[in-house]
Amino acid sequence: MFQTSIYQNRRGILSKNIQDGILVFPANRELGMNFADNVYHFRQDSTFLYYFGIDQPDIVGVLDTDTGEEIIFGDELSIDAIIWMGALETLASKCEKAGIKDVRPKKELAPFLEKAKRNQAIHYLPPYRHDIQIDLSLWLDLPINLVNKKASIPFIKAVVAQRSIKEEVELVELRKAVDITNQMHLKAMEMAQPGVEEAEIAAELQRIAQASGGQLSFPSIVTKNGEILHNHYHGNTLKEGDLLLVDAGAETAMHYAGDMSRTMPVGGKFSQRQKEIFEVVYGAHQTAIEGLRPGERFLDRHLAAAAALTDGLKDLGLMKGDTQEAVAAGAHTLFFQCGLGHMMGLDVHDMENLGEEYVGYTDTLQKSKEFGLKSLRLGKELEKGYVITIEPGIYFIPQLIDQWKANKHLEQFINYDVVETYKDFGGIRQEEDFVITDNGYELLGEEIAKTVEAVEKEVSR
Amino acid sequence: MFQTSIYQNRRGILSKNIQDGILVFPANRELGMNFADNVYHFRQDSTFLYYFGIDQPDIVGVLDTDTGEEIIFGDELSIDAIIWMGALETLASKCEKAGIKDVRPKKELAPFLEKAKRNQAIHYLPPYRHDIQIDLSLWLDLPINLVNKKASIPFIKAVVAQRSIKEEVELVELRKAVDITNQMHLKAMEMAQPGVEEAEIAAELQRIAQASGGQLSFPSIVTKNGEILHNHYHGNTLKEGDLLLVDAGAETAMHYAGDMSRTMPVGGKFSQRQKEIFEVVYGAHQTAIEGLRPGERFLDRHLAAAAALTDGLKDLGLMKGDTQEAVAAGAHTLFFQCGLGHMMGLDVHDMENLGEEYVGYTDTLQKSKEFGLKSLRLGKELEKGYVITIEPGIYFIPQLIDQWKANKHLEQFINYDVVETYKDFGGIRQEEDFVITDNGYELLGEEIAKTVEAVEKEVSR
Ligand SMILES: [Mn+2]
Ligand SMILES: [Mn+2]
Repeated sequence: MFQTSIYQNRRGILSKNIQDGILVFPANRELGMNFADNVYHFRQDSTFLYYFGIDQPDIVGVLDTDTGEEIIFGDELSIDAIIWMGALETLASKCEKAGIKDVRPKKELAPFLEKAKRNQAIHYLPPYRHDIQIDLSLWLDLPINLVNKKASIPFIKAVVAQRSIKEEVELVELRKAVDITNQMHLKAMEMAQPGVEEAEIAAELQRIAQASGGQLSFPSIVTKNGEILHNHYHGNTLKEGDLLLVDAGAETAMHYAGDMSRTMPVGGKFSQRQKEIFEVVYGAHQTAIEGLRPGERFLDRHLAAAAALTDGLKDLGLMKGDTQEAVAAGAHTLFFQCGLGHMMGLDVHDMENLGEEYVGYTDTLQKSKEFGLKSLRLGKELEKGYVITIEPGIYFIPQLIDQWKANKHLEQFINYDVVETYKDFGGIRQEEDFVITDNGYELLGEEIAKTVEAVEKEVSR
Repeated sequence: MFQTSIYQNRRGILSKNIQDGILVFPANRELGMNFADNVYHFRQDSTFLYYFGIDQPDIVGVLDTDTGEEIIFGDELSIDAIIWMGALETLASKCEKAGIKDVRPKKELAPFLEKAKRNQAIHYLPPYRHDIQIDLSLWLDLPINLVNKKASIPFIKAVVAQRSIKEEVELVELRKAVDITNQMHLKAMEMAQPGVEEAEIAAELQRIAQASGGQLSFPSIVTKNGEILHNHYHGNTLKEGDLLLVDAGAETAMHYAGDMSRTMPVGGKFSQRQKEIFEVVYGAHQTAIEGLRPGERFLDRHLAAAAALTDGLKDLGLMKGDTQEAVAAGAHTLFFQCGLGHMMGLDVHDMENLGEEYVGYTDTLQKSKEFGLKSLRLGKELEKGYVITIEPGIYFIPQLIDQWKANKHLEQFINYDVVETYKDFGGIRQEEDFVITDNGYELLGEEIAKTVEAVEKEVSR
């Protein structure tokens, strides 16, 4: 946990930002894999961590913005439980560290809310866990299918406003996460040799994250089929000439995330064709970074990266025509189907559970519904203290190429005959994490191998 | 997947064992850690795997025992999804391999059940996932808090009867799981050196399980505080003289579990006191194994192990009095608070979600409510094909010793003055996995280091 005043300050600001009513923060619970007691590793809710810091399941925080009351509902371990689980720190002691003196038994929560809801608004965030949906349905007497619809927009907006601007103590944790993430990627480069299985590398990345006392921040992508964007299959064996795409990150013991991607030549040498595409992605990556500063719309960095990708693909004969027109028409989305990046913090896609319309967009800048832009999680103006990822890529997806080609889609910008010869290429992505500073940006952590030469050198060690 | 006829046979037997009505098998879904799309590794429901073998989320199997109809409700990937996830095997193809030709869109399930329930009983197993509870509540128009109470006992009993007797193809998978589990324990012994962190070993065990293409079968226990029975804290650094207790297992790619425990001296040498307690546990372990055969009640193996522990503790001066009287009074439970073992299969505690009263006991042999015996998951007569664990242990739990001593509990059997000097000892457990054969038992996998000498040798390599 951070020091007590951090949590007190955060809650104080939040209470001020909400007009009135009761704020309810359910902590997460343990979740069973194949039976109730065989649990996945516990992951606390990030908003609960942000305001209370207590990394324990099955408790609920309540803030009364009208009276200033702050309560944690939860139960101490019984003597029986201590026999099985050891003498752990008491809940009261943890609450003390969070600056909360009022700790009440869990069973008092339902009657408390029953009474409160007669006179006060009850605010809660949209639950992403089904047990919490059931709880809210029962506590608030709501049909289960209305629970998420009735989540509090003022509460969401106030949380987003606070969590978006990272404090210095958070940046320290985020740098730690990126440091471990760097180690993971350097190890992947070392292991990217013919005969090695994707599963071995994925397992080693998880080992590094866990040995540091944390976890993975998301399921690792470790694949020679980098064109499959959500690819968690690790069943292939690497061979000379393959490209290995690794998108992976660590989560620190305090649950701050790192998220990086590197693409590497198995065995240590990019082919000419791989090198060319790699350098287009690298160039777009650098273009995107250069404009990072407060006041810049992330949407505009995305479009600048798209233009750089288009220029590069024109040079290679894959695209043609006017770059700005091509980007405006979305022609680059045949190769770059997704977004340039996203916020990062306690969640790898920070606050994704609160809704992209609040986290990445504003009332006046709404997310596009077009292919490509609809996958851009962040569009709005950057502010000092935002932590974001930059992750352009080029992906040759055979099914998508076939579909577009059959429809002669945007053929004024795409040389389909050339593209056809790249259908076995795979995909390349490069991703780093940044914090927005007063005048620009700062890379989180050290820079690790990023150019053709540097990556080849790491693989060949 | 196993060959098609395996699943067809299993479903045929099940249908025959149920009098009438519709059997509903909801597959598991992906579960979000900190937001919906940041998921834990997918774990299919074991009963679904047993009867259908399809390792894919968000589908539902339905068997009509009246008409013989077999249906899978689920949706094929859209072209959009293929772009993000690659061209995966179709659901229809997987269903074909499971011997099911009738595949219908997911949205047809609710109306199907709506209609069926007018004339037929709808059988389902007690759900341990909250999303499935919500589904059943909506499908069957049941209040959420009644869903588990209305689970079908005939369905539970029929599934338990089948899954309890392991087929030869299952034993092959279980031996694979134990082989990987063996590798994990040998690696832990190698790593049990001063200065190593518990977290490093735990991370390495997970790496081994994952690199084999599987997962851990349960969260590993890797602790120098082995007396804490449910201890998943990995924050300590090992030092010379510590005992390290490792209880861990692998799950194969087909989701069969291994589950073993070893206790090892950090640095390679047991102290005299550690050696003495280790040998008492070892002796009880061997005593328990020797009586394994069809017709033997597992409860009686548990009591035989308890008697062997008591004899050993008497020799060391920790207990006194008549052994049988001590065991009958539960005096050994000051040191051995839990059960001798459990069934193992697709779940590490096989079928725990179906209820111990059905899996481990019978209508005539009910589970005891006494301390100690209430933690024995399996009591009934063994049958050929049962796969079980044997895991006696001795645990010095300071809080429990204080509690019993203050109450002078069973002081005719316990030398509290001597016990007092062991409060810093920790705990020792030894666990192996067996299948019951025609006349006795067979150890699954190779036997790895198990005696004082053999364990010391592995640690000292
Ligand atoms: Mn990312
Ligand atoms: Mn066990």
